[in-house]
Parts: sequence; structure tokens; C-alpha cells
Amino acid sequence: MATTNTQLFGYWRSSAAYRVRIAMNLKSLVAEQVSVHLVKDGGEQHSDAYVSLNAQELVPSLVINQAGKQRVLTQSLAIIEYLDEAYPDVALLPADLFDKSIVRAMAMLIACEVHPLNNLKVLQYLTGELNVDNDNKQAWYHHWLNEGFSALEKQLEQHSGTFCFGDSPTLADICLVPQVYNAKRFELDMSPYPNIERVNAHCLTLPAFINAVPENQADAV
Amino acid sequence: MATTNTQLFGYWRSSAAYRVRIAMNLKSLVAEQVSVHLVKDGGEQHSDAYVSLNAQELVPSLVINQAGKQRVLTQSLAIIEYLDEAYPDVALLPADLFDKSIVRAMAMLIACEVHPLNNLKVLQYLTGELNVDNDNKQAWYHHWLNEGFSALEKQLEQHSGTFCFGDSPTLADICLVPQVYNAKRFELDMSPYPNIERVNAHCLTLPAFINAVPENQADAV
Repeated sequence: MATTNTQLFGYWRSSAAYRVRIAMNLKSLVAEQVSVHLVKDGGEQHSDAYVSLNAQELVPSLVINQAGKQRVLTQSLAIIEYLDEAYPDVALLPADLFDKSIVRAMAMLIACEVHPLNNLKVLQYLTGELNVDNDNKQAWYHHWLNEGFSALEKQLEQHSGTFCFGDSPTLADICLVPQVYNAKRFELDMSPYPNIERVNAHCLTLPAFINAVPENQADAV
Repeated sequence: MATTNTQLFGYWRSSAAYRVRIAMNLKSLVAEQVSVHLVKDGGEQHSDAYVSLNAQELVPSLVINQAGKQRVLTQSLAIIEYLDEAYPDVALLPADLFDKSIVRAMAMLIACEVHPLNNLKVLQYLTGELNVDNDNKQAWYHHWLNEGFSALEKQLEQHSGTFCFGDSPTLADICLVPQVYNAKRFELDMSPYPNIERVNAHCLTLPAFINAVPENQADAV
């Protein structure tokens, strides 16, 4: 997978794009980074050009030109599962099926229970349609983070090594690090989550994670 | 997988448990159904006994006793991916990796973008902590359904046959049917989504889907 035939449509602060950046870095895969500004002009993800790629009007989209065909992959976890099967050299899921299900469940705890409730479009609906004030918005944000992180902390007590599951980075770490980034941005008290803090700090010593950090992207403001 | 060594902890009206029931039926796998009442006494999912199985305090959990070990699988999509790899005879994902990513993306559109915003705990937070009235709760519910279904309808125009992707049931149908069940319960106008309606109706002609319907469960009220 080389720069010339693959494009990752993302945005520096999108957690879902951040996940795919980490996965590609861990696998030493390279894509041209195309920025879709989620706020400017009401959001470039709603432009006709982008909607024709991604009917959900969300980032990321991974566009692969291969054998004369253009393939558009959407939904960050579906993209990462694809990459893990197409480029298996650096595995992001354990081989044992029970272990694999534990890692996927950790990833989905974040991707299906925490992140969907705290992303931009939901916060916009709360403050817009529902007139929720800033204090209540912050409380909402922290509520779902605390609920998810409390459950994940117990799982890490049982399964973590230097990473969420054992001593290799997996899909669980790929989801965790962007979520902790958001938690810190929204000033969540992380003291109840020592294992999450420890794993996150360890991940962020590795170039694959560091190079994927929002502030290290070309479109960062 | 026989009744004696496998238990599915669920609840008749939980969409996530409904998904796993469909998947197991499609694969002719049998489990003892254990009901976790999500509303009675503040919710049995918060009991000490259940929390020791599932730290997220969510259904479903699939408990497999095998070779003297008890394995607890959580998160519906992680459970179904496990079943699909452990019992591959009736495949729930296409073999081609690009096709597979399209099916997973359809499933995640529902599981990561629609369902998390409309499940019980979120509606309880809206009406409790945020004092949202019934009309605004209904509008919230419809908003995320319409957003998700609009995008999915376009994907079905492109990829559906008798099912969401081609002419075999996949993970996408397994997620779609419970979501349409919820949409109808909350009186969503389905007329903008003829492909979703058509695929849903076709699925519900099959015993694997019919037997998984909430009203057909032993704990249905």
C-alpha cells in the first residue's frame, strides 16, 4: 500500500480517523492524508463531493485504488479489521478466538458505548435542539466516559500487560488512546483509572501512536 | 455447542441480545436462555451476580463452559464475530475482504451510530438528568434513526439483493432487523426507506429471524 494509490480522508481531531492512523502506522502502511474539515463552512463532510464517497458523512474513509478499481472503506473498526486481514504481518488481534473476542469487546466498549455519545454531532444536537447548557454538556460527556472507563479499568486489571491485552498493541489500544485524548481535553479526572493511564502512557512512547496524535497532523490548528 | 454448556444472558427487548439470537439461530447453535430483566428492581443487569460476569452491566453475555474453563463473551458484535470464526459452516460475513468490510461497515453504522444513542440508559439520562420531555425524546430517537437509515438506504441501493448484501444473510441483516423492530415500536415513518423495509420483511420470513423476535422469547411480557 503506497502513497500513490491510497488516500485516508480524515480530520486531525476525529477520534475515528486517529484510530485508523495508529493502525496504519503499526503496520507501516502509508496513505495520502486528505483533510475533511468537520467544522469549517458547516462541515466539509456534508459537501456533495464527500457524500458521494461516504453516505454517512463521517470521517474516516479509506480509498484504495487497486487493479483499476476504486474501493471506499468506511467505519473505522471495519477499516482496521480489513487492514488486519489484508496485511497480517503485524497482527492487531490475538490468534486465539476467545482472546480475540476479549480484545474486540474492549474496542467495542469504546466504539459502541462511549464515543458515539460524545462525538461532535451529538454535542451539537444537545446544545442546539435540546438547549443543554455548558455544565450539563460537560456532565453528559463525563458520565459516558466514566461509565465506559470504569468497566474497561476492571477488564484491564484482569487482562492488561504493558498494553490493554498482554504485551502487544491491539485494536483495544487503538481505540483507547484517542478516547483518553478526548477525556483529557474535556478535563476528566483520570485518577480512578490507573491501568488506563498506565497503558495510554506506554502507548504514547511508541512512534506509531505519537505520529498519529491529532496535534502532529498537517491539518491541526 | 449444546444447551448444557452454553448460556446466553439476554432480555427479550434488548436489540443487542436479539442480534446474538439471530446469529445463533442462523448457525443452528443452541444455548440456554437466561433472562436479565433490564427494568425490574432498577435493572437486574446491575446486580452483583451479573456484574461479576459483565463489568459493563449490559446484555448480552455468552457464557461458554468448555474444557473445564468458563469463558464469558461480551459485546454483541464481538460475540457474533467469535461465533462466525468458531462455527464457520454458515458464514455471516463474505469471504472477499472488500465485501466483508462493506458488510461490517453496514453493521457498525447501526451498532456504532444509531443504537448507542437510542438505548435504554441514554433515554433514561435524557428524561432524568436532562429533563427532556416526551416529544423531544421521540424527536431525538427519530433523528438518529433517520440519519442512520438514510445512509444505510443508499448502501442497500448499491449492494442489496434479497438481503442487505447480496442474497445471503450477513452481520448487516442481523443488526438491521432489531433496529427496524425498534423503529416501528417508536413509530418511525419508514416510507423513505423502501430497501430497508423490503430486506427486513424478507428476513422475517425465515425461522432464524422469526424465532429471535422479542415477542417470541420466554421472558416477553
